[in-house]
Amino acid sequence: MTIHQDRWLLPAGIEEILPQQARDMERLRRCLLDLFDTWGYDLVIPPFIDYLESLLTGTGRDLDLQTFKLTDQLSGRLLGIRADMTPQVARIDAHQLRREEPTRLCYLGTVLHTRSDGFAGTRSPMQIGADIYGHAGAESDVEILRLLLTTLETAGISSAYLDLGHVGIFRGLAEQAGLTREQEMALFGILQRKASTELDALLDEAGVQPAVADMLLALVELNGDDALERAGERLARAQDSVHRAIENLRQIAGALHAWLPQVPVHFDLGELRGYTYKTGVVFAAFAPGWGLEIARGGRYDAIGEFFGHARPAVGFSTDLKGLIELAAPAALSDHAAAVLAPNDHDPELQALIGELRASGRRVLTWLPGQHGSPGDLGCEQRIDYCDGRWQLVPVEAGKG
Amino acid sequence: MTIHQDRWLLPAGIEEILPQQARDMERLRRCLLDLFDTWGYDLVIPPFIDYLESLLTGTGRDLDLQTFKLTDQLSGRLLGIRADMTPQVARIDAHQLRREEPTRLCYLGTVLHTRSDGFAGTRSPMQIGADIYGHAGAESDVEILRLLLTTLETAGISSAYLDLGHVGIFRGLAEQAGLTREQEMALFGILQRKASTELDALLDEAGVQPAVADMLLALVELNGDDALERAGERLARAQDSVHRAIENLRQIAGALHAWLPQVPVHFDLGELRGYTYKTGVVFAAFAPGWGLEIARGGRYDAIGEFFGHARPAVGFSTDLKGLIELAAPAALSDHAAAVLAPNDHDPELQALIGELRASGRRVLTWLPGQHGSPGDLGCEQRIDYCDGRWQLVPVEAGKG
Repeated sequence: MTIHQDRWLLPAGIEEILPQQARDMERLRRCLLDLFDTWGYDLVIPPFIDYLESLLTGTGRDLDLQTFKLTDQLSGRLLGIRADMTPQVARIDAHQLRREEPTRLCYLGTVLHTRSDGFAGTRSPMQIGADIYGHAGAESDVEILRLLLTTLETAGISSAYLDLGHVGIFRGLAEQAGLTREQEMALFGILQRKASTELDALLDEAGVQPAVADMLLALVELNGDDALERAGERLARAQDSVHRAIENLRQIAGALHAWLPQVPVHFDLGELRGYTYKTGVVFAAFAPGWGLEIARGGRYDAIGEFFGHARPAVGFSTDLKGLIELAAPAALSDHAAAVLAPNDHDPELQALIGELRASGRRVLTWLPGQHGSPGDLGCEQRIDYCDGRWQLVPVEAGKG
Repeated sequence: MTIHQDRWLLPAGIEEILPQQARDMERLRRCLLDLFDTWGYDLVIPPFIDYLESLLTGTGRDLDLQTFKLTDQLSGRLLGIRADMTPQVARIDAHQLRREEPTRLCYLGTVLHTRSDGFAGTRSPMQIGADIYGHAGAESDVEILRLLLTTLETAGISSAYLDLGHVGIFRGLAEQAGLTREQEMALFGILQRKASTELDALLDEAGVQPAVADMLLALVELNGDDALERAGERLARAQDSVHRAIENLRQIAGALHAWLPQVPVHFDLGELRGYTYKTGVVFAAFAPGWGLEIARGGRYDAIGEFFGHARPAVGFSTDLKGLIELAAPAALSDHAAAVLAPNDHDPELQALIGELRASGRRVLTWLPGQHGSPGDLGCEQRIDYCDGRWQLVPVEAGKG
């Protein structure tokens, strides 16, 4: 019977996490939250469901399509399951905390996507990320990039490289070209696919001046280690905001190189991750031999305003499930051998078990009549009463 | 404008958790998962959404009503958001692990309810629980009860008391009365409300023999410390399965008293939490001065069968959010004062910051041009360059 068989099938892109992997995830989770804490980032836990309008505030159509919708029986209103925690965390900063000083926040939790994407191919990533609110300078961009790289290192990924862009470059050129919002978004889509012919046709149709059209076309090629240098020349006739964006990117890249000279940095001025709500630098991290980005982020100074308190913001996020897949074995955990104890409430025995457990040892109680040997339970030692006291002995000794 | 204002409103019974409470929750979460680990319980992480049939397998109508439903765009099938992780964990044991020996599993995660209930009044409790699969004796019931009490103690709740019942008593009497499944469920509902008059009417209408009807009526009164003793007399004419259930409950209560003589135990033979899928002992824990149960559980030997591997099972669960509300202040955390560091990539400074962070100290970087004083950021010390080296000084000394 189909229905009966399906009782243990999972929906596509939805996983259940078994003991070994759950232990690895819990361990990495703790390492990363401790890391964030020592860098001054406070943990917040946004709700799993939220009013849809609130979840999608200031974000784009992509997030809307990725968000599962529900009807709230209590209010009759439309709810969404969070597909990205960033707007929720921005709301917490703007509406709940309302500080003037820089606020560092971090978060970790499952998000759901209607379709699978991302580097682990799941529909339920465990998003982990960190943001700085309330500081607009390149120093906070660099701190977030350093924390991103330290996060990857903590997960055992030490050879990551970065891809940097800046939405101000495209946005400035689109403004200079006099594009409507619709044309701008169409152009943005074409640029993401790096489809030069389509780009040409759209610019022509929109009647964009040749000089500006050339600069928009140049974005497709402005990538690589030397893209910033070439940009100075190729985009020489751009409006001021474009030059400020290039200068901002140069400043961030320069500072990053001073902090972390060994990290490879590439530029891609046509790559505009999260364009609809980003306002400055945008970035992604990659691991060698892995095609998809493993972490991403950027500056988004406009979201707080929607929640009543305009605040500059920059942050990154990644997927803990994906990190576990990529993590070097050394970063993962082994479980110490357990101890088997008799099912007896003798206070002296219980005191010994209590001490062992307090020191982190795993002590299992032998349940009368149970199946399986001590070895099946992962036990190499057991507690036995000999010479007038309870003591640890190898499982082989005496009765099992 | 209503829509604008609503952007920062949360749906009823849905919370966002701010830094102080998030820190407390993370700390308690770790303590409890470590406790479970040292008792031999492996963490598993069931999926947040699942096929609805699978989520509701072997459970009752209550859980169905509490479960948010979604349509899967990929398969067109109905999905549910987990409202209780127990059936998912039972599936992991039965279908994925398939062991013969006893398997101890624990879990922690957000569950969602369409309506608020439970002791914290939330629609998104953070369910935490533990189960033993593969052992049918009273010893595993007692281990779960001991772990439940230790869990509450770890959360700072040391004066909890227990309420014990056994679904086998009511189930046996309903069978003896010759009730249909519909009559049995109607009777069960009435019994939960302890509505004796309605009970009388239903038993009369169903034509139940007076001797059996008397015993069913007696269940309403069979509660208190001495309920088991009175049950022997009041239910003397019950069928064997009822006597076996009473004997089982007596055995569990006796063993629990031997282990934990100080824990107050009440009996309530008419209280049948989770009746539709429970098969043996059922229990709840209460804290003095708090009307609602703070943890619950029982034996449910039938679920594994639905997933292809019949296994006895017993477990408990509680809500981490609720425990935090009840927890004694001593169980909660204070944050050590932070250190403020200059935004400088000097390697010696970075080495000092690295050491401080590795030892668990929080070090915040001062971002040029930022608002707020060191005190606003929770810093009592800062790192300054004096006498030829970087060192910790009080924030009052020198420049801020």
